[in-house]
Amino acid sequence: MIDFVLLIVIAICVIALGLAAILTRNLLSQDEGTPKMREVADAIRVGAEAFIKRQYSTIAVLAIVSAVVIFAVYYLTGQQAIALSTAAAFIVGAACSAVAGVVAMWIAVRTNIRTAAAAQTSDGKALDFSFRGGAISGLIITSMSLLGVSLTYIALGADPQHTPFVIIGFGFGASFVALFAQLGGGIYTKAADVGADLVGKVEAGIPEDDVRNPATIADLVGDNVGDCAGRGADLFESTAAENIGAMILGVALFPIFGVNGILFPIVMCSLGLLASMIGILSVKGKDGADPMDAMNRGYYITAIISAIFLTGGVYYLLGATPGWIYFVLAGFVGIALSVAFLRVTLYYTDHHYRPVQDIANASETGAGTNLIMGFSVGLETTAIPAILIGVSLLVSYWCGTMTGIPSGGLYGTAVATIGMLMVCAYVLTMDTFGPIADNAGGIVEMSQAPDEVRHRMDKLDAAGNTTKALTKGYAIGSASLAVFLLFNAYMADIAKLTGKAFEVVNLAKVDVFVGALLGAMLVFLFASLAIRAVSSTAQSVIDAVRIQFKDPAIMAGTKKPDYAAVIDITTQGALKNMVLPGALVILFPIVIGVTMKYEALAGFLMVATITGILLALILNNSGGAWDNAKKYIETGVHGGKKSEAHKAAVIGDTVGDPFKDTAGPSLHVLIKLLATLTLVLAPLFI
Amino acid sequence: MIDFVLLIVIAICVIALGLAAILTRNLLSQDEGTPKMREVADAIRVGAEAFIKRQYSTIAVLAIVSAVVIFAVYYLTGQQAIALSTAAAFIVGAACSAVAGVVAMWIAVRTNIRTAAAAQTSDGKALDFSFRGGAISGLIITSMSLLGVSLTYIALGADPQHTPFVIIGFGFGASFVALFAQLGGGIYTKAADVGADLVGKVEAGIPEDDVRNPATIADLVGDNVGDCAGRGADLFESTAAENIGAMILGVALFPIFGVNGILFPIVMCSLGLLASMIGILSVKGKDGADPMDAMNRGYYITAIISAIFLTGGVYYLLGATPGWIYFVLAGFVGIALSVAFLRVTLYYTDHHYRPVQDIANASETGAGTNLIMGFSVGLETTAIPAILIGVSLLVSYWCGTMTGIPSGGLYGTAVATIGMLMVCAYVLTMDTFGPIADNAGGIVEMSQAPDEVRHRMDKLDAAGNTTKALTKGYAIGSASLAVFLLFNAYMADIAKLTGKAFEVVNLAKVDVFVGALLGAMLVFLFASLAIRAVSSTAQSVIDAVRIQFKDPAIMAGTKKPDYAAVIDITTQGALKNMVLPGALVILFPIVIGVTMKYEALAGFLMVATITGILLALILNNSGGAWDNAKKYIETGVHGGKKSEAHKAAVIGDTVGDPFKDTAGPSLHVLIKLLATLTLVLAPLFI
Repeated sequence: MIDFVLLIVIAICVIALGLAAILTRNLLSQDEGTPKMREVADAIRVGAEAFIKRQYSTIAVLAIVSAVVIFAVYYLTGQQAIALSTAAAFIVGAACSAVAGVVAMWIAVRTNIRTAAAAQTSDGKALDFSFRGGAISGLIITSMSLLGVSLTYIALGADPQHTPFVIIGFGFGASFVALFAQLGGGIYTKAADVGADLVGKVEAGIPEDDVRNPATIADLVGDNVGDCAGRGADLFESTAAENIGAMILGVALFPIFGVNGILFPIVMCSLGLLASMIGILSVKGKDGADPMDAMNRGYYITAIISAIFLTGGVYYLLGATPGWIYFVLAGFVGIALSVAFLRVTLYYTDHHYRPVQDIANASETGAGTNLIMGFSVGLETTAIPAILIGVSLLVSYWCGTMTGIPSGGLYGTAVATIGMLMVCAYVLTMDTFGPIADNAGGIVEMSQAPDEVRHRMDKLDAAGNTTKALTKGYAIGSASLAVFLLFNAYMADIAKLTGKAFEVVNLAKVDVFVGALLGAMLVFLFASLAIRAVSSTAQSVIDAVRIQFKDPAIMAGTKKPDYAAVIDITTQGALKNMVLPGALVILFPIVIGVTMKYEALAGFLMVATITGILLALILNNSGGAWDNAKKYIETGVHGGKKSEAHKAAVIGDTVGDPFKDTAGPSLHVLIKLLATLTLVLAPLFI
Repeated sequence: MIDFVLLIVIAICVIALGLAAILTRNLLSQDEGTPKMREVADAIRVGAEAFIKRQYSTIAVLAIVSAVVIFAVYYLTGQQAIALSTAAAFIVGAACSAVAGVVAMWIAVRTNIRTAAAAQTSDGKALDFSFRGGAISGLIITSMSLLGVSLTYIALGADPQHTPFVIIGFGFGASFVALFAQLGGGIYTKAADVGADLVGKVEAGIPEDDVRNPATIADLVGDNVGDCAGRGADLFESTAAENIGAMILGVALFPIFGVNGILFPIVMCSLGLLASMIGILSVKGKDGADPMDAMNRGYYITAIISAIFLTGGVYYLLGATPGWIYFVLAGFVGIALSVAFLRVTLYYTDHHYRPVQDIANASETGAGTNLIMGFSVGLETTAIPAILIGVSLLVSYWCGTMTGIPSGGLYGTAVATIGMLMVCAYVLTMDTFGPIADNAGGIVEMSQAPDEVRHRMDKLDAAGNTTKALTKGYAIGSASLAVFLLFNAYMADIAKLTGKAFEVVNLAKVDVFVGALLGAMLVFLFASLAIRAVSSTAQSVIDAVRIQFKDPAIMAGTKKPDYAAVIDITTQGALKNMVLPGALVILFPIVIGVTMKYEALAGFLMVATITGILLALILNNSGGAWDNAKKYIETGVHGGKKSEAHKAAVIGDTVGDPFKDTAGPSLHVLIKLLATLTLVLAPLFI
């Protein structure tokens, strides 16, 4: 017997998938532009599909091995009854995440060319196409996450007090794939980007996206596999992991709310999906207007409707307590935090504000001062977000305790997290819009389209850069709010396994303190490896490009460079270099947990999370600020393009590349992976 | 009635001061070189003394305000009995720290000229002088720290079960002054260095330490006020804070060991001082030999004698438990950790090993890749040290529990910390040797001495660079081991104040978690402000130097530049910019503690400490690696001086400057300041 509210979730997901299908059909029927454009787009599509195919083959092997390990852990620790179902949930989660990544990429490589074609006549139309391409991804990924959790819940028996502990396998599967997808994609995109720039722009002195540079197609492929597929997998697992964590917390409240408290997270997220659909449909491109205006309006519409739905949903599902209104307030805290994070990220990465201007100023005295200032800004960007997260946690916890129910405080933080997640589909739309616009710009550039077309695309590209930075802020903000509920889900899981209350993680114990120290260290070590992977893969790209540049026919433009060779090298480098850091963050916590047991592992998890959040902020925001300081100088200030200040700013931008697009986003995934991993492998740590 | 063992401490300190006096007399009787050398040295001395005078005047005002606040806190929270004594102990600690800093600087500015003079004839003699100059500082600072704690203990009643809780005021006073001394000195030295390099080397194309550059004297002054006075104050407060923390832990063991358990830390440190004296006297410079050989031999002699003294000391003082031998093992862990930290630091910052070579290789493709690789190396350097610290804590704790006494595990970590601190005077000697050699090199360069003299100094200067990096490793290693005992001292203090056991810092509580998040954030924000302070002060230096360079007579070398003007600007900038970050790290924990109370503050303190240790490692080691990658290229590899790779490496070195000499070392102090601050102001947080 399936609960009525589960049917609502499934119905909304089906509607969202239907809308995505309609949008896709409309989009595919659009003009594909000039033959030259198609040639470029085809090369990008082929490259992206080849990488994704090879990447997911590698991930599949790793996932199957892990599924066997999970099965063995459960089987050998006396949990035979759920060994198979947990391993199966892991595989389903991993498969869904892979499909989410593939869909995001599939849509992106078909939308880029149509956006480029539309830009020939209208920038409003170009925005419509690229935004709707993003919307298709956003809708499919979000509904697949919700459907995946719901259907797995049903398939595994829909027992409200036990099933949540089994479907964590789904969450871990999603995190597992997301880690490798984001890491591999991130290495690919930045190795190609850095390599193309250093040999093309710096050594050979040819412009960015020049057809003669054999690394340009790999660079454009990178946008699709890194930004689209990577962040798609990231936010897929965010919704999955956080919904499941909140469901586990709901088990403690079963005596009060019954099954409603457990299904609350996914019902609310599906209502958020509905709100996002309305927001998406409200966005309409207008020629000559700032594309950010339309997208911001859509975002606020989504947020307001979400707030209304949240109020109704809390009343309907959690109305059993007279203090339900405090849960509504907690949810508002989450929605408000999502808006606040976008504003703060904008402040730190937009050239209208002090931080980016400071970096641009510092470029006048050279790369040294540009970099010193960029770091200083990056380190500074932890302050306001940390205070915002701290205040949100305290206020939502306080709201929860005001409801008067036991464990209410904790559930308050869960409601805030869910509030923040409600707008997820809309944010994903904005996020995928970014690389699509970027790619369309590259196609326009490489197909040597007229100047007016380029100008139209430049405006869209700039908006895409902004949305990409903002959604990284959202991703890390929602992860930060979620971690507290994920810790508590882990503690509830351990308590269920041991049959004893587990409520204290005592940092004053020497093993817990050492666990915490090693957790923080792991985050820095992982970032080190991710950054180095970009550096060494870029080195291979540079060598390959240098060889081709020795052919005078290529430099003269009479012979087409061998794009495929560079794509192949980047693919191999990314795949090879994603395995070590990925394996490290999976194996290291297992070693800690097995040797030092669950309380030390909790210390490890919590302090790794704190450090991961702050380091991700530093890397994302410093990278974004360096990028925009360079773009700001390109508008003509401080001497403009080709000035000494610009050269310094280009170096800053290169340093920021692996920060903001490889290590930073991979840390988002790492944080949640640690949480789902400890949940799933909990039987090992007692 | 003064305990017999206290008399041992005082006697050893008096012997050490006597040895320092003899060394000083010998040194001052040496030749002061050519008139040109004296001219340069006089300018450095005058500049350094002027800065120190102004800096300590500012610090004195801040310290007096703080003493009044401490008095008020104790008086108003019902601790009238110890209000005055705690405030007085604070003032005495602050004054002793100031004297330690002044002495280190006073000796350094007199030894540099004599070392330069000695280098005219013999490199062995130059090593002897500079090393003994370092030894004078090391002996005076260490014995002042021990005497200060001992005499304050006696003056405040020498009641073994109560006085340790009162003399924490002394530790906080020392930390307070050390923070501003290190921060102000660090800003001064790097602003002058970066400013001098950017206008001199980069813009005007004149060599480093060129007489025409008005910023060179400020740069040389910086070595004295930043490295000598700064690190002197740092290690002074390390020994003070850690001894007092261990004495507080000894109170819990009073029933077993009596007063011996409480005085154990200072007795062992005084025995370590004796061992260091033997080690120091064993160092003898030899013409043509590698200076590192003699210094390393002295270090190993000190470590071995310390281990022997440790065994005897533990038997004599802690022999009341049959398991005393396990305390000896714990002490050996500390001594071994000090050696291991030096080796690891050497690996990461010496060009004979992979990390620095990787950075040098990456310089071939420009500043961008040099910087990316440098960061990656910096982040990586957290791994082995964190594992070493973790293992040392666990093993020394285990040793302590094997003694079979209650709280033995905790005392085991305290014994390990003391073991590590025993070699402190020798390490301080090596550390102060570095800037003296550096300064002597500058004097030789600026006085245009013959090439052979320069070559002799270059060798000594290179050794000084190595010892500076190594002692930073030691400083952070000893701080890391100590923090665990400092936390526990805080918890013991709170328990004493509330009369209730305080043994749990539960990170799963929302307020403790938020405290922890904000603690980690504070460390990043402080580093941001410290780095930015260098950047903005350097900017003022650049502007001042540019104005002077417009005078053709200065550039022609016919008119002496106005060194004093630049010294004045750097002094003002450093003093102005040290106040905000310093005030922040003092006020922020107070706000957290007052609003969120002692358990959340403990979470704050612990996670700030973990983050601080790791970030200090990143900043110190990446800075050191960049510096040495540049020097490695200057030996002729990758194209040598003036190649593109060298230019890239110079940029990396500039970025690393504020990391390794301003923010990194200030974080060492910050870690211990947070511990002593929470201890002293504990009555506010209950």
